[in-house]
Amino acid sequence: MASGNEFDIREYLQFRKRMIDAALGGYLPPEDAYPPAIFQAVRYSIFSGGKRIRPILCIAAAEAVGGKLDTVLPVACALELIHTYSLIHDDLPAMDNDDFRRGHPTSHKVFGEAIAILAGDALLTEAFHIIASESVRQAVNHETLLQVIHDISEAAGLYGMVAGQAADILSEGREPEITALEFIHHRKTGAMIGVSVKSGALLSDAGEGEIFALTEYGRNIGLAFQIADDILNVAGDSQAMGKETGSDQRSRKLTYPALMGLEASRQKAQSLIKEAVSSISMLDHRADPLRMIANYVTAREY
Amino acid sequence: MASGNEFDIREYLQFRKRMIDAALGGYLPPEDAYPPAIFQAVRYSIFSGGKRIRPILCIAAAEAVGGKLDTVLPVACALELIHTYSLIHDDLPAMDNDDFRRGHPTSHKVFGEAIAILAGDALLTEAFHIIASESVRQAVNHETLLQVIHDISEAAGLYGMVAGQAADILSEGREPEITALEFIHHRKTGAMIGVSVKSGALLSDAGEGEIFALTEYGRNIGLAFQIADDILNVAGDSQAMGKETGSDQRSRKLTYPALMGLEASRQKAQSLIKEAVSSISMLDHRADPLRMIANYVTAREY
Repeated sequence: MASGNEFDIREYLQFRKRMIDAALGGYLPPEDAYPPAIFQAVRYSIFSGGKRIRPILCIAAAEAVGGKLDTVLPVACALELIHTYSLIHDDLPAMDNDDFRRGHPTSHKVFGEAIAILAGDALLTEAFHIIASESVRQAVNHETLLQVIHDISEAAGLYGMVAGQAADILSEGREPEITALEFIHHRKTGAMIGVSVKSGALLSDAGEGEIFALTEYGRNIGLAFQIADDILNVAGDSQAMGKETGSDQRSRKLTYPALMGLEASRQKAQSLIKEAVSSISMLDHRADPLRMIANYVTAREY
Repeated sequence: MASGNEFDIREYLQFRKRMIDAALGGYLPPEDAYPPAIFQAVRYSIFSGGKRIRPILCIAAAEAVGGKLDTVLPVACALELIHTYSLIHDDLPAMDNDDFRRGHPTSHKVFGEAIAILAGDALLTEAFHIIASESVRQAVNHETLLQVIHDISEAAGLYGMVAGQAADILSEGREPEITALEFIHHRKTGAMIGVSVKSGALLSDAGEGEIFALTEYGRNIGLAFQIADDILNVAGDSQAMGKETGSDQRSRKLTYPALMGLEASRQKAQSLIKEAVSSISMLDHRADPLRMIANYVTAREY
């Protein structure tokens, strides 16, 4: 990817991030609501430096098929709430036991475990509260909204992210195996990234072919993104990750680099990116942000 | 309440419970889905002897205004999933640290903390997955379904159950105060019981007056139910509760008996029941189950 383009995509991502941050701020209640600790904890984790890749993908998918920003922004924010809930719970002592995330102490280090668990629960619940809110109901076709709620809850739940995290935890210390690893990555990260893209398409009344293409794009980029994260965890410096690198290795987690080595992992990520980009070849220039995001994912600091 | 009626209501509750249990079994995936531990944990807590009071209230509210069972049953089951998630998370060591519930070891004692947290997360997510599923979308008006999702997520989240549990935990060891106690009880228990009744009404196309009356009923019975639980915790024997009695006192939780004594708490519960029954006086004999449930709540073993 040319460096001129790379400059553009960084600006695009920054611009979108600021827009999403502003919208998130509007959806979350003020910190002084009662009892303050839980509202503070919710805001703390939401505003701890996330890249907003899921809402950005949702918006970019809508852009790609001529959708409207107003229609897609609330759902984009809801996706970030669900992502943030999953990080809070994943970081808990009983789970991955991480003290830092993105350079900040994790929620349970700041607010205690009980409030951290509840902050995660609240974010997951509020996601559906936002999607089903009156203002969204007035702006979006109801059948589409229900389909989006269905797809997001499927991607987040027992057939998606929760199953992936459970399999991940249960696999610690086991012999690495490619089928187990793909199961984990597809569900733990791929499902939510896939549904972020698909939701943007659904909310923009995309045609069946477009929805299929964008879902394929999302599936591929989701797995590529997780492999890139695995690689960063092994090869990146701890500053770029905001947490100690090598932590996955210490807890003997299943990762691509552990299973197939760094070089083969990089190639796998690259080929998934190619597949992602080729699956949306039917879409016009409005899908360029999606193409650039795909390339950017594996062009990060490693 | 005459003992003849009491016999009827027990039969009614048993009958409804069996129906709800069968439906729940159908909604939950089999235990051998992958990874098995999380599916086992979900089924374990759902089938650990709950009384199904929330789904029963939802169905009884629908009955009271001539609604259809098929329409309301999926949402009734979703309400039980959310209730069960809240019990699993409340029992965690970081929260109330309970080893037993309803006479069975709690989820984290059987499956470990990580899987217990994830089982709660899964149940909360699946609740919305069920409500937005294709079969429900085909049977129910979409605007009503979205309203129900909105109301349930409001009752379960930052303005409802989560806030109540957070306030409860943060109040431990503090001086008891009636406003704090009412905040906790209304949100922790009252909100979800209230929305159970309201959902039944909404899904049955009840009129505005009926919805208002049933919501009032739910609000009052919700608080009465929590006070009755508080009283049982102090006065009941541990067998009836399935956990050690006096545990609320040991952790210095805010409870009505601690604040106003046993007798005044009983009177408060009684007066709430009266108010609940009187708020649905406009409804005909089809609301009799709701009237009997109200009286049954405070007629339990104490």
